[in-house]
Amino acid sequence: MLKKIAETMAKAGSIAILPHIAADGDAIGSSLALAIGLSGTGKDVRVLLEEKVPQIYSFLPGLELAGLFDADDRRYDLAVALDCGDLERLGSRRTLFEKASITVNIDHHPTNPGFAALDYTDPSCAASAEIIYALLGEMGIDPGNDEATCLYTAIASDTGGFRYSNTTPATHIIASELLIKGIDVADISRRIFDTVSPGKVRLAGEAINSLKLYEDGRIAVIYIPNEAMRRSGAADEDTDGIINIARNINGVEAAAMLREMENGDIRVNLRSNSHVDVSAIASKYSGGGHTRAAGFTVRIGDLEQVGKMLLDDLRGLL
Amino acid sequence: MLKKIAETMAKAGSIAILPHIAADGDAIGSSLALAIGLSGTGKDVRVLLEEKVPQIYSFLPGLELAGLFDADDRRYDLAVALDCGDLERLGSRRTLFEKASITVNIDHHPTNPGFAALDYTDPSCAASAEIIYALLGEMGIDPGNDEATCLYTAIASDTGGFRYSNTTPATHIIASELLIKGIDVADISRRIFDTVSPGKVRLAGEAINSLKLYEDGRIAVIYIPNEAMRRSGAADEDTDGIINIARNINGVEAAAMLREMENGDIRVNLRSNSHVDVSAIASKYSGGGHTRAAGFTVRIGDLEQVGKMLLDDLRGLL
Repeated sequence: MLKKIAETMAKAGSIAILPHIAADGDAIGSSLALAIGLSGTGKDVRVLLEEKVPQIYSFLPGLELAGLFDADDRRYDLAVALDCGDLERLGSRRTLFEKASITVNIDHHPTNPGFAALDYTDPSCAASAEIIYALLGEMGIDPGNDEATCLYTAIASDTGGFRYSNTTPATHIIASELLIKGIDVADISRRIFDTVSPGKVRLAGEAINSLKLYEDGRIAVIYIPNEAMRRSGAADEDTDGIINIARNINGVEAAAMLREMENGDIRVNLRSNSHVDVSAIASKYSGGGHTRAAGFTVRIGDLEQVGKMLLDDLRGLL
Repeated sequence: MLKKIAETMAKAGSIAILPHIAADGDAIGSSLALAIGLSGTGKDVRVLLEEKVPQIYSFLPGLELAGLFDADDRRYDLAVALDCGDLERLGSRRTLFEKASITVNIDHHPTNPGFAALDYTDPSCAASAEIIYALLGEMGIDPGNDEATCLYTAIASDTGGFRYSNTTPATHIIASELLIKGIDVADISRRIFDTVSPGKVRLAGEAINSLKLYEDGRIAVIYIPNEAMRRSGAADEDTDGIINIARNINGVEAAAMLREMENGDIRVNLRSNSHVDVSAIASKYSGGGHTRAAGFTVRIGDLEQVGKMLLDDLRGLL
């Protein structure tokens, strides 16, 4: 099927590449790598995004081939949904996708149902970028430094820098081949992993100041009142990952972050390290998630009250 | 030479493996991998350490083959200095090394002068573990999950998880081959990169509370008074990496951490991101370092006074 997609792309004159809404490193990096590669063969190619490219990815090559969707109502010979788990992940670009002469769906999410004329999904890939790397090969396009920089960024993003369990031997082989292209690994890594906004740093400080350990340090809880968000000048997305401050403390099995929302709701994020099933607690409060990462939202008291309730639940599972 | 070392090891009955003093992930991981491999071929092999194995590496296989040096005054057929840039890095184990029938020096530090009967140094390797991986191959030892876990830990440690500029295509090829052995990448990564002591987290909070931005956020300074160390319950080594909180803030070019020592000295660490040469400032105060990372110690005032002086220096270089 990848060969068929390569042949079909070779015949198309104009190609729209559509990464998923709220595009992340894999979605953006894969899309730009494919766009640069196709553009080099003379194709009229555009990466059409639902939102602006996040600042963190502004260093990526090929951004001149990308733009916001709303300015574009052309009809393309071929449209590729890239890294989109389903049609909904195209957002408002679904119409553009469906009116293309040929539709292609390239993805690595195991739940992808298939929704295009040509579907290629490979859940064994840690990132869609691994598929794009193979696709460029099928098309006889040898990636240069620019494509390699985009693909490396994509793979590093989706594997947490080769640290998540989705990382495979094949992931490292591809990384090796991308490094041969001369990419600046230290610079890319610093940009995607080490750059933090001043607001997020202040929020981390607030989180640490509020941090409490219970049960001989086996439970760690972070409390974020509304004023802490205001004081730190943090944006909503800056709360991402803050719970890991608690989870990563030596000896901690279960970690929670309680955040007071503007409307009075309390948003609770839960993590565990080895045996506590935090999804059981989330279910109890109509939330969801997995064994090691779950969450829920309640409006049954203030931070302190919800914290007490939650501690009782966590103690019961230790 | 690696082949010669492999042949010599094959002939030795007893082998002492000596990682450098204050052994890090590469020194310990490489030593244990070699010990496990040799032990499997029936050798009497010991890893002799100057200090106890840091808690963070207590999950590594093969620790039953390792111990503190002071209990051991045997004479070995062969002694290997591993990951030791020079003889001094053997510390008090130098005598044991020199009285062995055959001495071997395996290292990747470019400044290694060579000091053994058989020297093998390869500065193109990101970690000494890459050499040990090749050596096991030369000896016909196929690494199992245990050796692979040690080697992966070693390589991940010395490359910052494949993020530093020392990471090469060969590094990723070896990582790929180690993953094939079935190692638990997510677990190893969490243990070596994400585990933080409660004291270090509190110290990070103190650092963030003290953080000041200057010159439109291009300079970031962290101030650690003695009481902050006491309040946080942090150990001395917990200050490692704290300066990166300042360095990693979006927009920061130069970062400094000023720490008040017990004796009244002020220890200053400096980092820069792209153009400021912080070693110039360190030299001015009889310190040392590199363009992007340097430091010095002074006793010419309190935190505030040294901070003001330093800011003047940094402003001049922006």
